[in-house]
Amino acid sequence: MSQKTVNDVQIAYIGGGSQGWAWGLMSDLAMEKQISGKVKLYDIHYDAAYQNEVIGNQLNERSDVVGKWRYEAVRKLEDALEGANFVIISILPGTFEEMKSDVHLPEKYGIYQSVGDTVGPGGLIRALRTIPLFVKIAEHIQKYAPKSWVINYTNPMSLCTRALYHTFPEIKAIGCCHEVFGTQKLLAQMVELLCGIEKVSREEIEVNVLGINHFTWIDQASYTGKDLLPLYREFVDKYYETGYEGSEEGHWMNNHFASAERVKFDLFKRFKVIAAAGDRHLAEFMPNTWYLENPQKVKEWKFGLTPVQWRIENKKRLVEKGYRLSKGEESFQIDPTGEEGVEIIKSLLGLRKMISNVNIPNTGQMKDVPLDSIVETNAIVSYNSVRPVLAGKLPAPVHKMIIEHIYNQETILQAALTKDKEIALQAFLQDPLVSSNSPEQNAELFEEMLSHTKNYLEGWNIHQKVN
Amino acid sequence: MSQKTVNDVQIAYIGGGSQGWAWGLMSDLAMEKQISGKVKLYDIHYDAAYQNEVIGNQLNERSDVVGKWRYEAVRKLEDALEGANFVIISILPGTFEEMKSDVHLPEKYGIYQSVGDTVGPGGLIRALRTIPLFVKIAEHIQKYAPKSWVINYTNPMSLCTRALYHTFPEIKAIGCCHEVFGTQKLLAQMVELLCGIEKVSREEIEVNVLGINHFTWIDQASYTGKDLLPLYREFVDKYYETGYEGSEEGHWMNNHFASAERVKFDLFKRFKVIAAAGDRHLAEFMPNTWYLENPQKVKEWKFGLTPVQWRIENKKRLVEKGYRLSKGEESFQIDPTGEEGVEIIKSLLGLRKMISNVNIPNTGQMKDVPLDSIVETNAIVSYNSVRPVLAGKLPAPVHKMIIEHIYNQETILQAALTKDKEIALQAFLQDPLVSSNSPEQNAELFEEMLSHTKNYLEGWNIHQKVN
Amino acid sequence: MSQKTVNDVQIAYIGGGSQGWAWGLMSDLAMEKQISGKVKLYDIHYDAAYQNEVIGNQLNERSDVVGKWRYEAVRKLEDALEGANFVIISILPGTFEEMKSDVHLPEKYGIYQSVGDTVGPGGLIRALRTIPLFVKIAEHIQKYAPKSWVINYTNPMSLCTRALYHTFPEIKAIGCCHEVFGTQKLLAQMVELLCGIEKVSREEIEVNVLGINHFTWIDQASYTGKDLLPLYREFVDKYYETGYEGSEEGHWMNNHFASAERVKFDLFKRFKVIAAAGDRHLAEFMPNTWYLENPQKVKEWKFGLTPVQWRIENKKRLVEKGYRLSKGEESFQIDPTGEEGVEIIKSLLGLRKMISNVNIPNTGQMKDVPLDSIVETNAIVSYNSVRPVLAGKLPAPVHKMIIEHIYNQETILQAALTKDKEIALQAFLQDPLVSSNSPEQNAELFEEMLSHTKNYLEGWNIHQKVN
Amino acid sequence: MSQKTVNDVQIAYIGGGSQGWAWGLMSDLAMEKQISGKVKLYDIHYDAAYQNEVIGNQLNERSDVVGKWRYEAVRKLEDALEGANFVIISILPGTFEEMKSDVHLPEKYGIYQSVGDTVGPGGLIRALRTIPLFVKIAEHIQKYAPKSWVINYTNPMSLCTRALYHTFPEIKAIGCCHEVFGTQKLLAQMVELLCGIEKVSREEIEVNVLGINHFTWIDQASYTGKDLLPLYREFVDKYYETGYEGSEEGHWMNNHFASAERVKFDLFKRFKVIAAAGDRHLAEFMPNTWYLENPQKVKEWKFGLTPVQWRIENKKRLVEKGYRLSKGEESFQIDPTGEEGVEIIKSLLGLRKMISNVNIPNTGQMKDVPLDSIVETNAIVSYNSVRPVLAGKLPAPVHKMIIEHIYNQETILQAALTKDKEIALQAFLQDPLVSSNSPEQNAELFEEMLSHTKNYLEGWNIHQKVN
Repeated sequence: MSQKTVNDVQIAYIGGGSQGWAWGLMSDLAMEKQISGKVKLYDIHYDAAYQNEVIGNQLNERSDVVGKWRYEAVRKLEDALEGANFVIISILPGTFEEMKSDVHLPEKYGIYQSVGDTVGPGGLIRALRTIPLFVKIAEHIQKYAPKSWVINYTNPMSLCTRALYHTFPEIKAIGCCHEVFGTQKLLAQMVELLCGIEKVSREEIEVNVLGINHFTWIDQASYTGKDLLPLYREFVDKYYETGYEGSEEGHWMNNHFASAERVKFDLFKRFKVIAAAGDRHLAEFMPNTWYLENPQKVKEWKFGLTPVQWRIENKKRLVEKGYRLSKGEESFQIDPTGEEGVEIIKSLLGLRKMISNVNIPNTGQMKDVPLDSIVETNAIVSYNSVRPVLAGKLPAPVHKMIIEHIYNQETILQAALTKDKEIALQAFLQDPLVSSNSPEQNAELFEEMLSHTKNYLEGWNIHQKVN
Repeated sequence: MSQKTVNDVQIAYIGGGSQGWAWGLMSDLAMEKQISGKVKLYDIHYDAAYQNEVIGNQLNERSDVVGKWRYEAVRKLEDALEGANFVIISILPGTFEEMKSDVHLPEKYGIYQSVGDTVGPGGLIRALRTIPLFVKIAEHIQKYAPKSWVINYTNPMSLCTRALYHTFPEIKAIGCCHEVFGTQKLLAQMVELLCGIEKVSREEIEVNVLGINHFTWIDQASYTGKDLLPLYREFVDKYYETGYEGSEEGHWMNNHFASAERVKFDLFKRFKVIAAAGDRHLAEFMPNTWYLENPQKVKEWKFGLTPVQWRIENKKRLVEKGYRLSKGEESFQIDPTGEEGVEIIKSLLGLRKMISNVNIPNTGQMKDVPLDSIVETNAIVSYNSVRPVLAGKLPAPVHKMIIEHIYNQETILQAALTKDKEIALQAFLQDPLVSSNSPEQNAELFEEMLSHTKNYLEGWNIHQKVN
Repeated sequence: MSQKTVNDVQIAYIGGGSQGWAWGLMSDLAMEKQISGKVKLYDIHYDAAYQNEVIGNQLNERSDVVGKWRYEAVRKLEDALEGANFVIISILPGTFEEMKSDVHLPEKYGIYQSVGDTVGPGGLIRALRTIPLFVKIAEHIQKYAPKSWVINYTNPMSLCTRALYHTFPEIKAIGCCHEVFGTQKLLAQMVELLCGIEKVSREEIEVNVLGINHFTWIDQASYTGKDLLPLYREFVDKYYETGYEGSEEGHWMNNHFASAERVKFDLFKRFKVIAAAGDRHLAEFMPNTWYLENPQKVKEWKFGLTPVQWRIENKKRLVEKGYRLSKGEESFQIDPTGEEGVEIIKSLLGLRKMISNVNIPNTGQMKDVPLDSIVETNAIVSYNSVRPVLAGKLPAPVHKMIIEHIYNQETILQAALTKDKEIALQAFLQDPLVSSNSPEQNAELFEEMLSHTKNYLEGWNIHQKVN
Repeated sequence: MSQKTVNDVQIAYIGGGSQGWAWGLMSDLAMEKQISGKVKLYDIHYDAAYQNEVIGNQLNERSDVVGKWRYEAVRKLEDALEGANFVIISILPGTFEEMKSDVHLPEKYGIYQSVGDTVGPGGLIRALRTIPLFVKIAEHIQKYAPKSWVINYTNPMSLCTRALYHTFPEIKAIGCCHEVFGTQKLLAQMVELLCGIEKVSREEIEVNVLGINHFTWIDQASYTGKDLLPLYREFVDKYYETGYEGSEEGHWMNNHFASAERVKFDLFKRFKVIAAAGDRHLAEFMPNTWYLENPQKVKEWKFGLTPVQWRIENKKRLVEKGYRLSKGEESFQIDPTGEEGVEIIKSLLGLRKMISNVNIPNTGQMKDVPLDSIVETNAIVSYNSVRPVLAGKLPAPVHKMIIEHIYNQETILQAALTKDKEIALQAFLQDPLVSSNSPEQNAELFEEMLSHTKNYLEGWNIHQKVN
């Protein structure tokens, strides 16, 4: 069975001009023997997509590339979708200018965000400009590729996926994210460290996953019959004060994406279940008095605030690299990304079967969570099928925090769909990251942030007075 | 049908030595023609119960008393329960010393509470000492009066009622509270004022009630075919700044229980549904930055912080009055209390049928609320039956706040039942009233408050170090 | 409050040319002081509607008529609907020719039906031709009177109401039926008979109602504080063999609508809850071996098979009477019908509040019944609001039978909506009334019946071979 | 990871004196490299268990046996349970004398049963005598091995498993059955036959399973990316009339367990989903007019009625064989059974992970099925964990039939637990297999059957007159 191949796979890549995610996909596809076909690249920046077409097609000529794919930039979304078996969505909603406002403007009011793309004031405003894009994408999928499987990587993940299903309820979409994998890797390292076992892979760490994207939790974990929760308690006790940095000591100080897992450890001490996302994401879901009160406190918790300026500069470097790659001045490096997109595609084609965590509407996999809200749990992915497993329910205090964010997201969705400033403010005021400011201060911040993103709020009455 | 009478009703009154509630019941019963029987008074202070026996039995000799009841103080809970058709519970858990700590100790940390008996740090600690008492009461009811109907007036209402059902799931218990009536009265006054109609009674104000006790909401209201929500919007707009005080201007400044309804009006402006409890209660369910940030802000919102010292002095006055009443030095005044207890008893006996708001376990009356949690909605009360009506669901942002408190209460229940300090702290840290303090400060406050109530925490390991 | 009046009520009557129901409404409206307005009569037979216009308008001149209404026949459905506050639907789907086939054709196969309009082969075929009509009506209501309240009297009640909600989910529709009232009357007579109380009215009999239309059950019943279930057991024991006929002994033999309640009594003996519909209806929900095996068995159970020929002749009599009434040759007799339609209208206008049984989608009022299926339980009807009460769950064996019919109805709905003969046959084969015949015999009967109703099955491929 | 071993596994085998199942387990364990340990055999016939101890321990000396296990017969249930990691239950409730009555007595009334151990009159009576045994077993497990995993093979599967959970809700029990495997094998053969592919194994046939034991259905099936439902339609069309017998033509006439799959094919034609159990079982869930009307019809459908006399004689042969095995006169043959018990044990130990169909309480895996009822769906079995996948919902007509049996089983459970003859009769009358007889005939049959099993109905008032 493993030798079976499928050779006419057609993938539509929305955001196909991206550097990071698109190159990663090219790399993973290049190493894959069982499938081949065509990738249509669509991007609002056609030139960027075209550059990726050039880069991608060069791969076919390389002898070390086993997976042969044709890349084609297209000018219209429908051209990408027509005939697609799979649709990948990985876009940046707005520009880094808007993101700058999302992330840094709240600092004026004492609100710090380590990422600013999921929850908190930044996540909310980003969602307001992203949801209309996803509504449009869903409408196009319904029209041009209703039977395709859709894989979303865009943040805010839960709301993007929610918008897809809300617009086209029969869509077959899943949201994929690697944050849980990171926690599995941490657990694998822990097993190596505390049990003296070598080469434990993250796939060998069995976990029960439940929660929402970037605020996902693990309440059962094992490694070949060994219960990892008691071990994790030991691990946390050992590294609680110093943090755990593995071989990369001090890394968290220099790398905007690294941490010493102290937030994760603290959450475990308090709630007895394992938070399964990076510390930068986790911290944003809690009241700001916990981990994000001010930059000093962030430093004590040993994680970092990611400045948007860094993203801007990084983007510049990637653009230059893209130019070099397309001109043949630099060789494209083929490395496994660690993402599961290609494995999921193979599973949906029936070439394998896998169990992994995905973001899809709740149809019962999480108990006492409203139906239709997007949750992240394990699912069995197999031929044309994604079936969630019943993940159960987290302890009441953790479940409560998840539910809070789910309802806030529901309010944000409604605000975005109805372009209603009052409803958007209701959600804004209820985000735990702003809960130590007064409603009046928060309303002021909201107005300011909204006006910075107004180019993406078509149809909104942005000057409406609300309270 | 209205002429029917029942003459052998037996009521067990737990907390029967109380001045306020017990005298109120005596008064209501004295005016009631259709039922008569016996009230057994049980109190941990037997003497107080005995004094009420004397006071109650004096009423039988008065010619203006149509409802004839025999009162009897008993020394044991089981003596009160045996043979009872109805059980009324109205107790003070602990003394005013504990309540002083509940309410005022948090002020040291900048946390102000207007009542301190329902939610917030005070409500939580009070619940920890109350739940064991209700577990014991439920066990006794199961043993001695399993078929009786139980009416609870004690706060924290939701958790007291939850503890009863948790302990004895087949119990027939309802929690009764007059806060919604107050809002109906406000709406009646509004109709009089804005429509020029005279003598509108609160019973004529039709409402759909949903939420939890003291954080109850109305999403439909009408008066003989007139939709009251648009009218309320007008009303709020008119009185938002000044507040509405009816005939009692300035009252809120002198009376610890009064308010100018400004919190209620603000909640309506923000959420478009009517908050249906007193402002002092409502404010405590919101983050403290909203209405309770400091005494000055409370004053601006025109409600009051009720000092426990006032309760202590008031109690003294009542004790003296009780003495005079029992000695015949003062005449017992018979007035309708406005409470519905007696009407509910009559309904359960089949003498009438009524629709009113009650606190009972959710069996579906509130959508997307966990089953078994105690909610407050309308119900039809008739012969041996309390059937909730399907109340629907509040707008997402309001629903979210209710759900948060429901899960926090669930955590508190679990802490109280398992005597687990860690779980109690989990709940404490998540109360919105403390959300602008850091977890470390809150943990310190928690320790201090817990030690002040330790006399009522039998079996707890109160010195356990938790984080 | 009771003196309030509403004088501009507008009612659309679909099926307004009917004799029975339309005249009943005229009669009830004529006696009603608090409301007045206009009734627009729409009927596919315009002349019949016009005749009723004449009859109705004559009433206004009579001095004994306190409720003044203007009647107007209209030629188009939209003309009736525009401006309507209330829509009443009471139509005959197809003619008596189709009904003849529904009811009597199965007799060839040994299948007897006492009514043939709800379940069984007759009810199914009737539903297939009725559902498209209700889809059309719902579409018109959505377009022309989306805010109106809709009261349906047409059978099959559950499927008609289901079709309305399926087509226009925001419709405010209720299905009303008097069968439960009949059982309340029986209980009232029982109280008079066994307790020696005089003049017990059906409204004084408190009941908890649950089930589906014509297969409704009562699991709690009381009369001013007296539990009626033990009394009913006594009553059944006394009259099980002879049946109970009240003052109308032998009536069931001569009147196609009467019975001696023996089916009802037998169901109580077997299931311990009270079946609350006429025996003719109840019998049709059970396997035919129970009560409808053959005419002899029907006679033993002392109820009757209603021949369609009787309906045809009765219709003739009514048509003649209608002619005389419209010509003034006969005086219109004003009598209360016992139907609650007018009271419901008054309640929805806010002039009163009532609790009664209605047919509406399940939103939780019946536990473990699929959401959206139409169930019959008590509801509170008040200003612009119908709120079901939580009715609980029947004993498993009765619940099972209800669920069976609910799923069969769901299958019938799907067959009618998709015009799918295979699905229709799936439902047909599963009706308990045909369960003692083989699938092959039943399929033959189905084909024959379907062809008799083909004039009303537009768009069906009626000659498709199915198995 | 696959090389890991666990060497101290302890299994309690209830029914450990059996020939079929116990020998099968010995055989599977003997071939298994990764686990070893001890099996304690408990049986009400100690001698039979002891004989199996002897047979089992002989295996250890054989060079072809890689899995080393010690067998020990014990005299008390608690001795078997203490220390057990796994409990296997495979018992015969009552003797073949009772089973004879279960299966053949109804024939007098024209009711034929092909197996008589799951549903129908035989299944019901068998359940009445089995449930008390499982209550007792569950109580012992709660007391002596509360953390163990319990694997049940006994019929009626659903009710046995239900009784375990009802008695000890925290039990970790699963019901295992090979009937679905049989259908997977049929699909594998179909793929070989129609696609010309060789050696397709049943494990390669991906299926979504849902339903209840022996009335399980498949609504999605694939083989390496090929959708098998259209193929099955083709298959059914080809073999509908003749049946499909593979290489074993005529087998169904001589083998009481074989069939030509015609029932399965007919159910597919009628309902468009694949029935996934043997025809003998499937037929019993339908009204008897479908497949079991009389022996002639059974023959036409090409399956068989299994006479209990055959079982009796077969048992005799096995007893003799057991004697020979224990005496070393015959060599124990080691062959894979095709059962998954051992693989499940390995998975629960963390040595592998598998997805397979199991019978466990519904916690949401089947939509619109009452919680707690036992359903059969796929689950992920891994270290100390069985998590069902969300299996969705079958088409309404099939769902309806499943629900009917679920409620009937619930009624049977209640009858068995309360020893209530009236409730047992309620369930009996509602079984579809008896629906073409009158309630009176069925009641008579019920009485007769009940009296034949009275030795196992301790505490019942078997002579109570019921109707």
